Parts: sequence; C-alpha cells; structure tokens
Amino acid sequence: MKVITFLTDFGDRDGYVAQMKGVACCLTAARLVDVSHDVPAHQVRHGAFLLWTVAGWFPKGTVHVAVVDPGVGTPRKAIFVVTKNYVFVGPDNGVLLPACHTESPFTVYEITDPGFHIHGGQTFHGRDIFTPVAAYITNGVPFGKLGRPTTSYVDLRFPIAERKGDVVDGMVLYVDHFGNLITNIKAQLLPRLEGRLHVTVSRREENVPVVSSYGNVAAGEPLLTVGSSGFVEIAVNKGDAASRFQAGEDDPVTLRLD
Amino acid sequence: MKVITFLTDFGDRDGYVAQMKGVACCLTAARLVDVSHDVPAHQVRHGAFLLWTVAGWFPKGTVHVAVVDPGVGTPRKAIFVVTKNYVFVGPDNGVLLPACHTESPFTVYEITDPGFHIHGGQTFHGRDIFTPVAAYITNGVPFGKLGRPTTSYVDLRFPIAERKGDVVDGMVLYVDHFGNLITNIKAQLLPRLEGRLHVTVSRREENVPVVSSYGNVAAGEPLLTVGSSGFVEIAVNKGDAASRFQAGEDDPVTLRLD
Amino acid sequence: MKVITFLTDFGDRDGYVAQMKGVACCLTAARLVDVSHDVPAHQVRHGAFLLWTVAGWFPKGTVHVAVVDPGVGTPRKAIFVVTKNYVFVGPDNGVLLPACHTESPFTVYEITDPGFHIHGGQTFHGRDIFTPVAAYITNGVPFGKLGRPTTSYVDLRFPIAERKGDVVDGMVLYVDHFGNLITNIKAQLLPRLEGRLHVTVSRREENVPVVSSYGNVAAGEPLLTVGSSGFVEIAVNKGDAASRFQAGEDDPVTLRLD
Repeated sequence: MKVITFLTDFGDRDGYVAQMKGVACCLTAARLVDVSHDVPAHQVRHGAFLLWTVAGWFPKGTVHVAVVDPGVGTPRKAIFVVTKNYVFVGPDNGVLLPACHTESPFTVYEITDPGFHIHGGQTFHGRDIFTPVAAYITNGVPFGKLGRPTTSYVDLRFPIAERKGDVVDGMVLYVDHFGNLITNIKAQLLPRLEGRLHVTVSRREENVPVVSSYGNVAAGEPLLTVGSSGFVEIAVNKGDAASRFQAGEDDPVTLRLD
Repeated sequence: MKVITFLTDFGDRDGYVAQMKGVACCLTAARLVDVSHDVPAHQVRHGAFLLWTVAGWFPKGTVHVAVVDPGVGTPRKAIFVVTKNYVFVGPDNGVLLPACHTESPFTVYEITDPGFHIHGGQTFHGRDIFTPVAAYITNGVPFGKLGRPTTSYVDLRFPIAERKGDVVDGMVLYVDHFGNLITNIKAQLLPRLEGRLHVTVSRREENVPVVSSYGNVAAGEPLLTVGSSGFVEIAVNKGDAASRFQAGEDDPVTLRLD
Repeated sequence: MKVITFLTDFGDRDGYVAQMKGVACCLTAARLVDVSHDVPAHQVRHGAFLLWTVAGWFPKGTVHVAVVDPGVGTPRKAIFVVTKNYVFVGPDNGVLLPACHTESPFTVYEITDPGFHIHGGQTFHGRDIFTPVAAYITNGVPFGKLGRPTTSYVDLRFPIAERKGDVVDGMVLYVDHFGNLITNIKAQLLPRLEGRLHVTVSRREENVPVVSSYGNVAAGEPLLTVGSSGFVEIAVNKGDAASRFQAGEDDPVTLRLD
C-alpha cells in the first residue's frame, strides 16, 4: 500500500492541507499521512529538519511532499528527488535536501510537464503541482514524463559536530514541544551512557548526568541522553530544557569529555 | 474509494473528532479526511467559508460533514444536501449552504429516520446523527430512507464584490494563519496582474503592486494577488497583512481601478 | 478493516507521531486514527480520561495505542491489555486502565519479546515498542508471542460520584476546549432533564436549569445537562463554564437534589 506524506507550514486551521488531500484523493488510493503542518511560516530549515528525521521511518516507495515555500510563484524551480527508497517532492529551496543526502545517491528532477498539474493559480503549488506529481508517482507514471534530471538545485545540509581533543563543539538543531534540545552531536561521540559531563549551552554551563533515558534522573533535573534520532539531546526530566538553559535553535553546545 | 470529510469547531485535543471517526470506522470503509477542527467555537460563517473553499477539491461522491452547531439539541433541523457531485451533512444553520450554492442545483433533505442514528444523548449530533448518516450515504443507502426533501432551510451566501465605475467595494472574507486577507473580490475584476492599485483596507490606504505571487515583491512589502480560491488576496511577502493593515474578517476593502 | 488509534502527549508539530505512523505503515494496512496528541506533557490522568471516553466508539478489534509516558526508559513495564472488544497498548503507568475497566474482564500482558521491537534507542518506546506491537496484533500475531500475562500492573480508576441523601458530591474530571466542565456524576443521578438545581462548583454556588442540550437556555446562561459520555456536564450556552465558575480539573462539584 503506497503512502504519501505531507509536511507544510500551512497550519491545520485554514483548510489548505485539506485542499491538497482532496486533490490526492482524486488521483490516488495511496495512504495520506501528515508529518507536521506547524512548521513556522517560511522556515525552510525547520521543515528540512523534520523531514530529515521523519522520512526514513516510512516504507520503501513512500512519496514525501514538503511545502515550506516562501518563493512560490517566483522563478524558483519545482523539483522531485529520487532516492533508493523514497521520492521527495517540493520547492527547490533546500527543504528536501538533508533527507535526500541521508538516502544518497539521489537524482534531482526539475518538474516540467504542466500536463500533470492543476491550473489553480500561482500561489498554491502544494495543491496544484506537488500533490498531483506525488500522486502520479505513486501511480507509476515514469519520472521522465514528470520532469527532467538536473544538476542545478539549492543544497542544504545540517552541520554535524566534530570532536577536537576533549571538546565537542556543536549546536542546537531543534527544540521540540517538550523543550528538549536536540543537538547535532552524534550518539557515538558520547563515551558512555553513565557518569557526568560538563555541558555548555548558550552561555550556561552545568555538570550533567549522562543517562539512557529521561526517567533516570529526578524530576526537574537536567540530563544528557541519546534522542530518538540518534543525536545527543539535552533534556530536563518532566521539565523544559529550553527554559532552563535559555537556549534555542542554532545556539552553541559544547561538551567537555575529560 | 469513497471519502468522508470532517469540519468542526471541536479542536483536536478533546477526542470528540475521534469519537466521530470511531463511529465512521464501525460503519464504512470510506477514507476519513480532516478539513479543519479549529473553527472558532460556534462561528458558523467561518466554518461555512472553509467548507466553501475546500469541498470542490474532493472527488465526486465525497460526503462532507460539517459540525459547527451552537443550536445542537434545540429544534433546529438536521439536514443533508445533495448536489451533483457531493453530499453535505450537518445542522440547519447555514454552514453547508455557501458550498451547496457553488454546486447548484441542490436538494435539501431533513434527516428524519432515527433508525439510522446512535442514541448517545442530545448534545453530540456530530457523532450520533451526522456521522452515521454520512456513513450510510457512502454505503449507498437511498436518500429517501435517511430523510425527506424540504424547501425550508436556513440559507447563507457570501456577498461577492461588484465593480461600480472605477471602484470595487468589497470586504475581507477570511484571514488565514499567515495573515493573508482573502477578499470577496473575484480575480476577474483585476484588470491585470501587473502595475499598482490603490487599495483601502479598513481605514488604511496604500498603493500596492499587483503581482502573480507573493515572491514578486521584496520581503515585507504588501501586494495584491489572486489567491488559491480565485479571490483577490492582500498579502505581505513573508509577512502578515492582517497586522500591517490592522484588518480582520468583515472589514471593508476598496480597490480604485483608475 | 482493522484500526489502530494513537493518543499521545507529543503534540502535532515535532513529527514524533509521524514517525510512529511510518513504522505502522511498514507493518500493517490497518487504518490509523488520531485520538489526540495534545495531552498536556506527562499528564497520565488526562490521557487516561480521553482514552476512556473515546475507545468504546471504535469497532471491535481496534488496537488503541496510548503514549503518555514520563517513565520511558526506566524499569516501568511496557504492557498490552486484552479486553473482549479491544487491545490497549502502552506504558504501565495507569493510562490504559480506566478504559480497560469499562471493558472488564481483561488480561494484562507484559511486553517481553524484543524480536518484535525496533531498536531505535531508549527514549521513544511509542515508536520502537508500542506501535510495532500494535501492528503485529492487528496482523494476528498471538498475544503469547508478544508478551506474558501478569497480575502486577499500575491500576487507575476515576472516582464516580455517589448520592448521599439529597446531596451528590462529585468533581470535575475534565474541562474541554469549549470550557464545558465534565463531572464524575452519572446521568442517572439527575432526577429529570427539567427544572433547576443548586450546584456548587469550586466555591461558587448557582441555581442552574437542567436541560437536554446547550441551546435550551439563552446565550451566556449556565446549565446542567447530560454530556456526550453520559456524565453530568456544567456548561454555558455559547460561553465558557470554566471561566464563569473559575473551575478546573479535580475541583469539587456538589448538587443539591431537594
């Protein structure tokens, strides 16, 4: 059973996502699954992070549609990207690319043939171009009919922290709704899931226990753990690490491993 | 594959929508698609606007359930409306009607036979009447078994702006979560998608470029464009027109076309 | 057609629910239905209430997954509970139990065989344990392969108000997004759906009409009615009872029946 996922900054209240799903229902029997529609308006990086962490949990053959698209209606390209397991469809602004690099190698296609689009206007490519193209892909329309390969596209990768001696210099990639700080420090850089480490987030330093899950420290206590995407996460058990450390996305995170 | 859509003012957090979907799952294999559950409580006009803009994107045969129902449990009728392509199910308070007029001609049925209802109480017709009726319709139960035609119902239409000489006097029909102001001025009243027009929103007048999409002006600049529903939209590229013009739903909008 | 429902405190914005659904799509063709993802973080009782009121509306054979799990990664058990009509899957912290008592008798299984889990980490059992177990159950994997029966589990029941002479001493179980106060007073304790009763909520006393639905009193007026779950509800027609009575969850409610 085919799956199409939807990631947008449209919110849930205005019916824009429903318009996309209506179009999908007209064209395909694929399952329609929401990734998130609460990406802050026009925040391409934020949407790219979510797609990157979510895409790989879906079955082979899933088509992921991502519409965080401040340039809609300008000459920015519309693209789809074919990887070994998935196809990603959306605007050429980088939102698809971190997820594609994880699934490398990949081929980027510029969407060309307007015969597969809906002619609804210039302001809603999510409904008029990306959703129909995704639906036709789940129906087996050949990629070459929907677009043509291109080597020119807007790239985006998230920086991954590296160890320099006893120090790891990283950053906060994402703050989730619990207030957990998801860093760009891979789990493998933690020497072990025990003991304590000095961590500096933004300008606040603490000596924090390293544990296998939130409940291993007392309520209200901070902790370092390996989050669900394989990155080091700074959290507070039953609390809010973003508030405690007064930290947000892109803020620096330093671990001292000595 | 049949589709039932759901539009309510129940929000997503209380499980009321899930109770409706549970009932639907008991009765039909149709696809269940959310339109929006964030209609402000009891705002019939707001719900009617969303249904009006969303319904037509779904496949022929879709049953649209809309439950914005401040009169639940009073003698207000429960109705369904049969149009050429769709059936609309909900309370007799106007919420269904703008969408029905678009699909005109239509027949309104009063829901009568309680044999097709669930006897859960007097406060939740969305779960106990509208959802079962929608499910039975997708299953092919004849309309005449579920209700009887009536010519007495609460009507609702949105006013459409008209041109008087060089002036178009319209209004804001809807403010979306980006802050875009969707007016009741049809695209055809714009002489062209270029140049500039004098626009007065609420009491603020500006000379604003007319463009084919948001990204055709600089970030932070206002614009007039044709929105995704075919109406003139007042927007700010990567910004919030509702804040800039201090305008909300029902506020007057005037275009000078000279 | 099998159904899996999802109830969490993950919110809709971070993609965590989508990761669970991706795993489900890999393993089963069951319908995936959201109950709510807006349970306040770590509020087990709140989640338990929603599951309790929603579960019974779904078809026999539905598997309900509930992940409000502040103890994830600690030695708290992972369980599933088999009742006559449903299977409930989640952490052993009580969140499943009120719904199970309604479906009594039931058997609690401790989830044991890690061969049916995903090895993603220690912080996201919703994705790595509960969803795969739910999917395998919809596929017909025998309960005994997924876990072993246990009589040791964390229980939870909601107290039900009793009548003492002419007084019913109850409490607010839940405040919905309209501000309706759902009490633990069963409908049968109301002598009739007419007349008026003295009601004390928190410390505010009023003489309130008892009606069959909200619209039976004027807009802005308080009322007692039987809510959609069969409990007495204190509401304000087109208004917000929680604000009017300055009341919240767990606050006392007293009815004088004389």
